[in-house]
Amino acid sequence: MAQTRQIKLGLSCRYLGYHVAAWRHPDVPSGGALSLQHFLKVARKAEAEKIDMIFFADSVGVREDDLPPGSAARSMKNAELEPTTLLSAIAACTQSIGLVATASTSYNEPFNVARRYASLDHISGGRAGWNVVTSWSEQEAWNFGRDQHFDYDTRYAMADEFVDVVAGLWDSWEPDAFLRDKQSGLFYDPEKLHILNHQGRFYRVRGPLNSARTPQGRPIIVQAGGSEPGRDLGARAADVIYSSAHSIEKAQAYYADMKARVAAYGRDPSELLIMPGVTFYVGETMERAKAKQDLLQQLIEPQVGLSILYHHFGDLRDYDIDGPLPEPKHAKVKSLADSLYQMAQENNLTIRDVYLTVAAGNSGWTIVGTPESIVDELQSWSEKNAADGFNICPATLPNGMEDVAEFILPELRARGMFRTEYEGPTLRENLGLALPELGDIVSRHGRKVVSL
Amino acid sequence: MAQTRQIKLGLSCRYLGYHVAAWRHPDVPSGGALSLQHFLKVARKAEAEKIDMIFFADSVGVREDDLPPGSAARSMKNAELEPTTLLSAIAACTQSIGLVATASTSYNEPFNVARRYASLDHISGGRAGWNVVTSWSEQEAWNFGRDQHFDYDTRYAMADEFVDVVAGLWDSWEPDAFLRDKQSGLFYDPEKLHILNHQGRFYRVRGPLNSARTPQGRPIIVQAGGSEPGRDLGARAADVIYSSAHSIEKAQAYYADMKARVAAYGRDPSELLIMPGVTFYVGETMERAKAKQDLLQQLIEPQVGLSILYHHFGDLRDYDIDGPLPEPKHAKVKSLADSLYQMAQENNLTIRDVYLTVAAGNSGWTIVGTPESIVDELQSWSEKNAADGFNICPATLPNGMEDVAEFILPELRARGMFRTEYEGPTLRENLGLALPELGDIVSRHGRKVVSL
Repeated sequence: MAQTRQIKLGLSCRYLGYHVAAWRHPDVPSGGALSLQHFLKVARKAEAEKIDMIFFADSVGVREDDLPPGSAARSMKNAELEPTTLLSAIAACTQSIGLVATASTSYNEPFNVARRYASLDHISGGRAGWNVVTSWSEQEAWNFGRDQHFDYDTRYAMADEFVDVVAGLWDSWEPDAFLRDKQSGLFYDPEKLHILNHQGRFYRVRGPLNSARTPQGRPIIVQAGGSEPGRDLGARAADVIYSSAHSIEKAQAYYADMKARVAAYGRDPSELLIMPGVTFYVGETMERAKAKQDLLQQLIEPQVGLSILYHHFGDLRDYDIDGPLPEPKHAKVKSLADSLYQMAQENNLTIRDVYLTVAAGNSGWTIVGTPESIVDELQSWSEKNAADGFNICPATLPNGMEDVAEFILPELRARGMFRTEYEGPTLRENLGLALPELGDIVSRHGRKVVSL
Repeated sequence: MAQTRQIKLGLSCRYLGYHVAAWRHPDVPSGGALSLQHFLKVARKAEAEKIDMIFFADSVGVREDDLPPGSAARSMKNAELEPTTLLSAIAACTQSIGLVATASTSYNEPFNVARRYASLDHISGGRAGWNVVTSWSEQEAWNFGRDQHFDYDTRYAMADEFVDVVAGLWDSWEPDAFLRDKQSGLFYDPEKLHILNHQGRFYRVRGPLNSARTPQGRPIIVQAGGSEPGRDLGARAADVIYSSAHSIEKAQAYYADMKARVAAYGRDPSELLIMPGVTFYVGETMERAKAKQDLLQQLIEPQVGLSILYHHFGDLRDYDIDGPLPEPKHAKVKSLADSLYQMAQENNLTIRDVYLTVAAGNSGWTIVGTPESIVDELQSWSEKNAADGFNICPATLPNGMEDVAEFILPELRARGMFRTEYEGPTLRENLGLALPELGDIVSRHGRKVVSL
């Protein structure tokens, strides 16, 4: 009998879960987004359950403060811990779980990013991952001396070069460069030091990085781009893709496209793991699962509901909330706005329907069901080449992780789909990825990034 | 009887101690600069001994890689952990000790610095400090798209504005802004949110910061400037000064000058703590203390000795090592080079003498002695208005901290000069500083930074 295909699992931990009303749930600590103890509780539970990695999305600004009056102050998305500092603290209190933090290529310097993630990889003993994003809101641009965010092409061109610089800096020192020979007085072997000397369109960075090569060789690179340049960057440089798909057909198409792109870059398709985001509402029975979702949906006030759609469709307060959704307007993330509009058209949804749907899963794939029915879907996606694993986006935390442990994992394990022990101490080992050689990330121009 | 004046104590922890040959010492773990466990050992010992704070100097590049051939590879100053990530990890494993990390105003964005230190303050429950530096090496400039470092006036003008922006961002939210009222659905009170809207010569930053006001109100600001603009910035905005002085007379003059400057900014002079750096070699007898120093001095090869002077005096390999020191040339930190040259002139020192002297204490104040003789000096500095406390720069770690615990602290406590228990859980409380109001840091132009 063929062995069941194993899946990888990540847990997205931002704020207090992915439901817009998560903070109002009776079991959720409403101040948790600023509490190390809250996230430690989640991380320890996830580690006890052998989840591959916890993940933090991020923004460098309060994106919600341009919402219509009354809505902004009802949002929990305004105060949080910075993810690399938070994950360093969690690293010190855990042993095996992967730690993936987001950093923007638009509003950081590549040297600082290379350094902070290398540091996190050393501190955690090889569990760091960098989720590469380009940011999307004007609110972020305003915090960095700009009137407007970079246009799409520019910011992706920047990201492309930024990743090359970071990867090149991570290759500054060979694994055995540091001799630290007390007898001879030689601290390192100068033959094993490589100066990057990068001079590109956006960045000039000499190097070397003031860090040794990290326990994972280099931190894992995670990316989420669905657009053409985003897919290209992911196929070229990423180890993991957090994708977004609402149907198995779309997920399969994305999966096939990405694996083909990876191969076109001369990489083995298994070197890139595709992990769609998914939100569960799970219970022993369908009724109980539905009740969990309903409890949260009822906590959404109409003005908060409209605010969910604000960045995609503008101010909808003058529309009939139970009428049809208008076309996207000034959308911040066009692909997302288009897919919401398409969903509304195809299913004849009202404005209220749409915001409730988005709220239920933060516009990602959402499943309401029993452990069996949910794992049936996951297994189907896994076996039909739609996913190598899943990035779980719980509606609420910490109880969302408890639901995963109580309902989802036992069923996955009963079918032989998920580990009972970690494969190793590093994220790379648990993801089944090989230790990279220097220069493993090949730039768009085909040359090795590192100047050996 | 008048109460003995209490002192504050910091511990500088960078690399493996401040002696250039520290890593070759038999009791020093030569790979410790990349090891969380090494620094945790030091931090836990320091906390057990009620030290106010541990401190990490920093650079954003390998400054040593322009040294003459053969010297660079003999330096330990090339690979280290990034201080905010390291201190976040230490925060998770300690309860009371202060955590001060360096970040450069020349090679960071103020929003990112404000955010990371606010995050560290939340994570640590109010123990974060930011040591403000402007950087000084070309090696750092080269990692950030520049051919040369910013000139002195420009980088201090940048630092001045940068600190205002960071302080203003830290004032984004009033202490009770976050209601998180599950019943009403109101997450925060919009009246208690303040948008900075900073538009200056170097920075345009709107805000708000995506963090709540921190446990200390805002993190502690530390600064070390000895120059005119450095002193002015420190007097205006710092809570603690890490000063550098080789004699009590110079320390007294600096202390008096800084306290007067603080008063001129309308602050109470007690709001700024002056803490000179000091390196001890201590033993039960003077002979044992001297033997500790000699052991390290003998581990300095001549080429490493000359490399210590390289950034101040250029390449000295063609000079007689036992002849006189030439005048400073292309000095990176002019004030330091001048003071070394003056020291050599006044004491008739050879090149070898100077590098050995610098090596003994990393060019700071160095005392070799018994517990009694050392604490006599500290007490004298404290009582004669030369210091509010001291920033201990141990020659080696972790054993330098063990020496402090075994020899220095018992003597300080016997004289009633140092605490036996922490005053509170925050660094601010232990330093005896009040919780600040919003807008407590007054900008150079007299106005409050925050736009209330």
